[in-house]
Amino acid sequence: MQSVPTAEIITIGDELLYGQVIDTNSAFLGQELGKLGIRVRQITSVSDRADEIVTALDLARTRANVVLTTGGLGPTKDDLTKHILTRYFNTELVLDEPSLRNVEAIFARFNRPVTEVNRQQAFLPASCLPVPNALGTAPGMWFEDQGTVFVSMPGVPFEMKRMMTDTVLPRLAAHFQVPPIEHIVVQTAGLGESMLAEQIADWEDALPANMKLAYLPSLGAVRLRLTGTDDGQPNLRGRMEALLPALREKLGQHIFAETDIPLEQAVGQLLAARGLTVATAESCTGGYLAHKLTSVAGSSRYFRGSVIAYHNDIKISQLGVLPETLAAHGAVSEEVVRQMAEGARQHLGTDVALATSGIAGPDGGSEEKPVGTFWLAYADAHRTVTRKIVFNRSRQLNIEYVTHALLNLLRLSLPAAE
Amino acid sequence: MQSVPTAEIITIGDELLYGQVIDTNSAFLGQELGKLGIRVRQITSVSDRADEIVTALDLARTRANVVLTTGGLGPTKDDLTKHILTRYFNTELVLDEPSLRNVEAIFARFNRPVTEVNRQQAFLPASCLPVPNALGTAPGMWFEDQGTVFVSMPGVPFEMKRMMTDTVLPRLAAHFQVPPIEHIVVQTAGLGESMLAEQIADWEDALPANMKLAYLPSLGAVRLRLTGTDDGQPNLRGRMEALLPALREKLGQHIFAETDIPLEQAVGQLLAARGLTVATAESCTGGYLAHKLTSVAGSSRYFRGSVIAYHNDIKISQLGVLPETLAAHGAVSEEVVRQMAEGARQHLGTDVALATSGIAGPDGGSEEKPVGTFWLAYADAHRTVTRKIVFNRSRQLNIEYVTHALLNLLRLSLPAAE
Repeated sequence: MQSVPTAEIITIGDELLYGQVIDTNSAFLGQELGKLGIRVRQITSVSDRADEIVTALDLARTRANVVLTTGGLGPTKDDLTKHILTRYFNTELVLDEPSLRNVEAIFARFNRPVTEVNRQQAFLPASCLPVPNALGTAPGMWFEDQGTVFVSMPGVPFEMKRMMTDTVLPRLAAHFQVPPIEHIVVQTAGLGESMLAEQIADWEDALPANMKLAYLPSLGAVRLRLTGTDDGQPNLRGRMEALLPALREKLGQHIFAETDIPLEQAVGQLLAARGLTVATAESCTGGYLAHKLTSVAGSSRYFRGSVIAYHNDIKISQLGVLPETLAAHGAVSEEVVRQMAEGARQHLGTDVALATSGIAGPDGGSEEKPVGTFWLAYADAHRTVTRKIVFNRSRQLNIEYVTHALLNLLRLSLPAAE
Repeated sequence: MQSVPTAEIITIGDELLYGQVIDTNSAFLGQELGKLGIRVRQITSVSDRADEIVTALDLARTRANVVLTTGGLGPTKDDLTKHILTRYFNTELVLDEPSLRNVEAIFARFNRPVTEVNRQQAFLPASCLPVPNALGTAPGMWFEDQGTVFVSMPGVPFEMKRMMTDTVLPRLAAHFQVPPIEHIVVQTAGLGESMLAEQIADWEDALPANMKLAYLPSLGAVRLRLTGTDDGQPNLRGRMEALLPALREKLGQHIFAETDIPLEQAVGQLLAARGLTVATAESCTGGYLAHKLTSVAGSSRYFRGSVIAYHNDIKISQLGVLPETLAAHGAVSEEVVRQMAEGARQHLGTDVALATSGIAGPDGGSEEKPVGTFWLAYADAHRTVTRKIVFNRSRQLNIEYVTHALLNLLRLSLPAAE
């Protein structure tokens, strides 16, 4: 087996150093290169100054087999990076016909004539292999120089991502003849990272030497990524998949997906598959739960609507919560969320409903019900399930955490498919 | 005048290179250093390996007057960065009493005994000036070595930010005796960057040489930041403020705030000041508008509730939209959003209401009403205002853009204060 190829990422642009733009490109590149088995050695953000870009390139090539740059391409910056690379590799700009046709096609789509500035974008350094840009006018460039690969891409995230997926990643895989590497994602909800690790410790310890498990935690959820590298034996993926039944047995209902989809989409698939409709009745989450459910394209198949009842009057008038229940137990109580969920089902005419009431903070807490106290409820035709959560980080994180817990409650409470 | 001090930022952690975490610390640091008049020369992300961190420090000090690092502090990583810096500056760890008392106070708050691992966090390199951590157990460190300042902070964003604001920025300002620099933020909504630039071109051209204007655009809004640097004359801030009336005159109602607050907070302040309550009736935005309004702490003073009416039945039953209007014009129409806004006011009992209906995509469009068609409405006791928007990027961006437009419609439509 050969050693692992290494990469460096250079992101170019004053706006990164001023903090006007957060660099999200590097994280995408790190993830994708990692999946290919290429280790990222360093990420460097530099200004638009030519001397600083050249210094960064000089240093990166001493440490890495491949240097990826984003930014500094495109008409407004006068193709800064392109001119620097042309000089750096001691070559000259020549017209690239396919790139020109791409620019012309894009302008034709908008019924506009090609400007001279955009025509210039089709001139590329003679020594580079062009990288087509399916979504924009600035092509990428692939250079090979004294054993190092250099790839230059635009800074616009969706253009860069498409370029990576369509062209750069396959070329890198071929160039470095990276050994086959396979990934399987298993997503869990409702278990913290350390609890989860404990629960599957035996399984993880028994993994063969060429398989590694990564824990990728987020608020209320943990993504598990099993990575298998070539061990000279056939059918790597099949051998990885053969390990999954034992993992499923250990984690049971905590697994919500075995693909890279968000929880709200997994829940939507369950609802759609069972032909069930859903409504929400929200107080403390203020519409964030409805937003999550409707952020999934096609959610109108199962989502009918919500009542956001911040004020108690609306809990009464729109959801049928009883004034005496509010008076006796307060809005943040098991009794009230139960009536909210049942009321939402009835008033909005759905098969199931979710409800929540709590204190998101920073103010509004009391000795008995401190900030971070939340009641959750699920209702269907046969039963109502309630749950209490105490969680207090910040207003925004509290809202996100409770929303995630509600989606998970829905997932776990839905009647089984027939 | 002296030359501008330069900084480099080094963020430490394998998770950054793997792309598991997006580096948001650097953007914050870049913004704050910029406000102080310190130019960020480079941002570097490196792994948790000692040799790679040392190399990054060696290179950074050749280019910058101050080197800021985040990450690699804290008990789980065994205070990696601290041990590396102790060796790097050829010093030794000694107990720092104030840091120990801070650790003890934090554990006392949670009623837990201080573990040995956490006690170790109070040992700091003898040659450093500690930087107190108000929100965590790992103190920061300030070193001065051969003319360069090194500051090491934890990677946890809220701990690092508080440390910067409380201690590091004031110390940097004193250390470099940076000339006075002043910033004034003016936030606008409803005008694109190029339109805005055109509208204030004369004003911008007439700015004195020591004042610069930056355009910081986001979806539907542009923040203007006027930065004034020392020109040896007194009262820099006063002279900057004297330029504002002319800017206000040129931009009029497009200005929504002269501080760094989001639009939903500015709108909330208007509602609270006028003692008005608000409700929303949402279809395509699916609760995102209610979420934005309620993301502001204290919003229960003016926000009463919402009806998310994805299904037409709910537009009829909860908002009083007439079935014949839906049949004649369709849900995405001026007539329907008008009834939704008026119905929300009435059914939810508020002074004003916002409503929207549209096609967020990716599916659901038609020849006549393509994806990206949105109708917006505002209603109060005296009038109803409607507006049509066509905007199509992605489902998520469409929802965000329309929500922003609704908040701006509310801001511009509210009755004047008495």
